[in-house]
Amino acid sequence: MVNTELRRDPITGRSVVIDLGPHPHPHDFLLEAVRLDDRTPECPFCEGREGEAGPELLAWREGGPANTPGWSVRVIANKRPMLRIEGHQDLRAHGVLETRDGLGAHEVVIETPLHDQPLHRLPVDRLWRVLWAWRTRLQDLKRDARFASAVVFKNHGRAAGARMDHAHSQIAAYPIVPPALDDKVRGAAAHFARTGRCIFCDVTAQERHDGRRMVSDTFPIIAIAPFASRVPFETWVLPRDHAVRFEEASDAMLEAVAAVLKDVMARVDWALERPAYNLVLHTAPFGGEADQAFHWHLELIPRVTRWSGLEWGTGIPCNPVSPEEAARVLRAVVIS
Amino acid sequence: MVNTELRRDPITGRSVVIDLGPHPHPHDFLLEAVRLDDRTPECPFCEGREGEAGPELLAWREGGPANTPGWSVRVIANKRPMLRIEGHQDLRAHGVLETRDGLGAHEVVIETPLHDQPLHRLPVDRLWRVLWAWRTRLQDLKRDARFASAVVFKNHGRAAGARMDHAHSQIAAYPIVPPALDDKVRGAAAHFARTGRCIFCDVTAQERHDGRRMVSDTFPIIAIAPFASRVPFETWVLPRDHAVRFEEASDAMLEAVAAVLKDVMARVDWALERPAYNLVLHTAPFGGEADQAFHWHLELIPRVTRWSGLEWGTGIPCNPVSPEEAARVLRAVVIS
Repeated sequence: MVNTELRRDPITGRSVVIDLGPHPHPHDFLLEAVRLDDRTPECPFCEGREGEAGPELLAWREGGPANTPGWSVRVIANKRPMLRIEGHQDLRAHGVLETRDGLGAHEVVIETPLHDQPLHRLPVDRLWRVLWAWRTRLQDLKRDARFASAVVFKNHGRAAGARMDHAHSQIAAYPIVPPALDDKVRGAAAHFARTGRCIFCDVTAQERHDGRRMVSDTFPIIAIAPFASRVPFETWVLPRDHAVRFEEASDAMLEAVAAVLKDVMARVDWALERPAYNLVLHTAPFGGEADQAFHWHLELIPRVTRWSGLEWGTGIPCNPVSPEEAARVLRAVVIS
Repeated sequence: MVNTELRRDPITGRSVVIDLGPHPHPHDFLLEAVRLDDRTPECPFCEGREGEAGPELLAWREGGPANTPGWSVRVIANKRPMLRIEGHQDLRAHGVLETRDGLGAHEVVIETPLHDQPLHRLPVDRLWRVLWAWRTRLQDLKRDARFASAVVFKNHGRAAGARMDHAHSQIAAYPIVPPALDDKVRGAAAHFARTGRCIFCDVTAQERHDGRRMVSDTFPIIAIAPFASRVPFETWVLPRDHAVRFEEASDAMLEAVAAVLKDVMARVDWALERPAYNLVLHTAPFGGEADQAFHWHLELIPRVTRWSGLEWGTGIPCNPVSPEEAARVLRAVVIS
């Protein structure tokens, strides 16, 4: 670290330490390139093994009956769910300790029938179908009045917490608004109360004018390296114009998301030499409280550094690569 | 996951998902045992290389002048500091984006002159000297009116973010109260405003009465597996009676901390087969606002699982081992 800044996230107010450089060579990170196993007969997500994966809640099918081959995207219940749809949302108190049933939904979106095809290599029209599955499932989950919100996430590579190599994402619906989302909802609501404007729209307008942290600036979807990036090459993909809920996005909007997301993932994949990564979708909570203030967005989080006691103990990540440098590198990648 | 609960942290109000079991075999975790390199001539923390490590801010010496051999604990400035003592605490705004100088202090406590001696193997009287160094440096740092708080942390093993094998901890002082500490300060202040009591004292009293999550119950220092543990075998070490600031602890109190901490670290080391771990010390912010409500404590955080997109996207950790099970296992370890 040579020259650092303590930056404040404009949405949550949380701080990060950003190293303004000179920057380490990429090889200074933990670069754990993702190598996928060869197709193993044990993978239940592969085409032809639908019976093992479990009955489908949703599938994009060219033909064939449910739970047989012929699909390109398939959604199933998680076989070892973290949350279950049976239960009550009541809080139970024992003295100062409070708990409730692990109520919720935990679904798996199998993104491709092929074992060795990562999400970022899917053609745009196939990536669109994954987004379509997210949208469809979110629309369905929000009909259950016990759920307050849902978050979509993806783990690619062991360093990002993946337990299965076969490309998949997960949807978790909760009886509460989880803190990582709630911090944004509260920050956005406070900004709206103060200014009458959406903080995401304000940030986006300022970033487009500034330019240094823009990764991609096409209408209707843009990509930016956030001012208070928590990890090297963190990148957000979001609508340029105000849009509260991903699940209300049109087919055409999802096409634009698929195109920009594929482009950004290809750039990150090249720049960091096939890193492990997480992808997170934050859409507004199901209740109406954030209707004007929230703005859906995707976070792409490469996992090339490791959280230390510093991050655990302070909650202030120390990011060795400035978003200005990350955006510059990502813009310079030539996508063939 | 078979049977889960959504538990609320009694201090911060944040949620975790706890799997109530049956529990995975320890081998189901990422068990990355810590192997320390042999002594390498390059290690600047080894005795005899004081000139490379840099001038000492503090040392426990049996004899000899500063910056020469003869020490058992030695504190130096971090050579690549994340924060620097030169700078202003003013926030600068550019539109909606706010930043400030990376002002602060970033020090390294070299815990032993020997390269291959981890903290948890130090004799109690040597471990005491490490705690003495933390206390002394905290007392000094709080005299700088620009600092609002300091956090002590330790990384043991690469999986816990360590870059050096030689046992060391770090002290970071900030111009703000970092969010991980601030969440606790706010939660404790709210509980105090509501009840007139310290939430840590309330939790401790309830846990001692319940017993299921107690790891060690000796006066004046106890160890518990927190009700809303974020990772398997998370363990807190804290004073049984109300104590706001670690840096005000007496020599006798530090002796008790050293004895319990060594015992707990030995149990975790055995149960998880030499895991990587982080250690975090949370003491009250330097200002007086938390004088009645806060209660200092040490968090021992084994790093045997990996954060996935779930934790990034929701902020709700999913812990596959209940604290009741972890405490039961830790109590059963026979320390020879």
